[in-house]
Amino acid sequence: MVITKSISLHTKGDCDIIDITPQVEQKVAESNVKDGTVTVFVAGSTAGITTIEYEPGLIADLRDMWERLVPKSISYNHDRRWGDGNGYAHVRASLLGASLTVPLTDGKLALGTWQQLAVIDFDNRPRSRQITLQIMGD
Amino acid sequence: MVITKSISLHTKGDCDIIDITPQVEQKVAESNVKDGTVTVFVAGSTAGITTIEYEPGLIADLRDMWERLVPKSISYNHDRRWGDGNGYAHVRASLLGASLTVPLTDGKLALGTWQQLAVIDFDNRPRSRQITLQIMGD
Amino acid sequence: MVITKSISLHTKGDCDIIDITPQVEQKVAESNVKDGTVTVFVAGSTAGITTIEYEPGLIADLRDMWERLVPKSISYNHDRRWGDGNGYAHVRASLLGASLTVPLTDGKLALGTWQQLAVIDFDNRPRSRQITLQIMGD
Repeated sequence: MVITKSISLHTKGDCDIIDITPQVEQKVAESNVKDGTVTVFVAGSTAGITTIEYEPGLIADLRDMWERLVPKSISYNHDRRWGDGNGYAHVRASLLGASLTVPLTDGKLALGTWQQLAVIDFDNRPRSRQITLQIMGD
Repeated sequence: MVITKSISLHTKGDCDIIDITPQVEQKVAESNVKDGTVTVFVAGSTAGITTIEYEPGLIADLRDMWERLVPKSISYNHDRRWGDGNGYAHVRASLLGASLTVPLTDGKLALGTWQQLAVIDFDNRPRSRQITLQIMGD
Repeated sequence: MVITKSISLHTKGDCDIIDITPQVEQKVAESNVKDGTVTVFVAGSTAGITTIEYEPGLIADLRDMWERLVPKSISYNHDRRWGDGNGYAHVRASLLGASLTVPLTDGKLALGTWQQLAVIDFDNRPRSRQITLQIMGD
């Protein structure tokens, strides 16, 4: 079986980190796929997907890391060419990655107890985001 | 076919980098899947998965990189809230990613000659880890 | 259906960033898989895969980021042991990742309008690269 689902999000931008685990679990339940994988993919070049223990301390720590590694305050060629002001967001998204595949067994995601699926929107403004879930298996 | 296998590891923590290629190859052989994919997923929010040429020089270089980019020595909100002392490990794991999908052709992983599958345990203490392998295909 | 395709590339090395979207789209069209996933995997331990808005400004920005985070100019254990001079390329590749899985719906990749699939060859010399595409679904 191949079941396509999608999740629509309104994000605040500016390194907004959003827990999508409940929505992914619900869509997997609706699909009736018990054993297989779910591929979680974010369309767009200024957002990415990862896992995190979703608690306020780590959310702040992860945001601090992005500001340290790929700062907003330095100059980007993208911004000089296009005036978008979101060069840093593109670079962060390319480093993080847009896709994550999680095994499903007996209808459950193989996540750890303190491990949530998170979308990070790096863009410099609020955005509407479409997350595609490709659920495959039996 | 969807075949679920798992690998149990005892890790030393502290950026322990472990070659799991032989175990993954063995589980793929047991599955009898010839053409498809294996998704390698580590449960938990302080470990990640990648590929590396598994030799002592690069293992040291990769550990040095993690210490440079996400140092143990700086202050983390997670640690101030929970006293765990492993905030850096969570942040590193979120940057690296918990999942990797490798094509299988004729029963073999599509890895390069000098490319191994590695689990990195960033946590600040030894851990027992469960790696889920979802093997799908014909 | 499981359809294996491959793409051969000649890269310049030195953080060469190559848009492979047209070739991936063509191979997916040849496969006749309409709904499923394509896993894009680069063999070798000095290259990686990601998505990017493929325009000259961002290509320069992404190269700048890699030089900032994992500089060529510092000393690597790998190079002291083996004299390869490409320790930095291995470390970058391990951080970026060798694999990306993209959903397919109605024969199309779930990419955003300004989101391309890119191979980054970090090695310190031109290379021939083999990209494996595992296309699975109906």
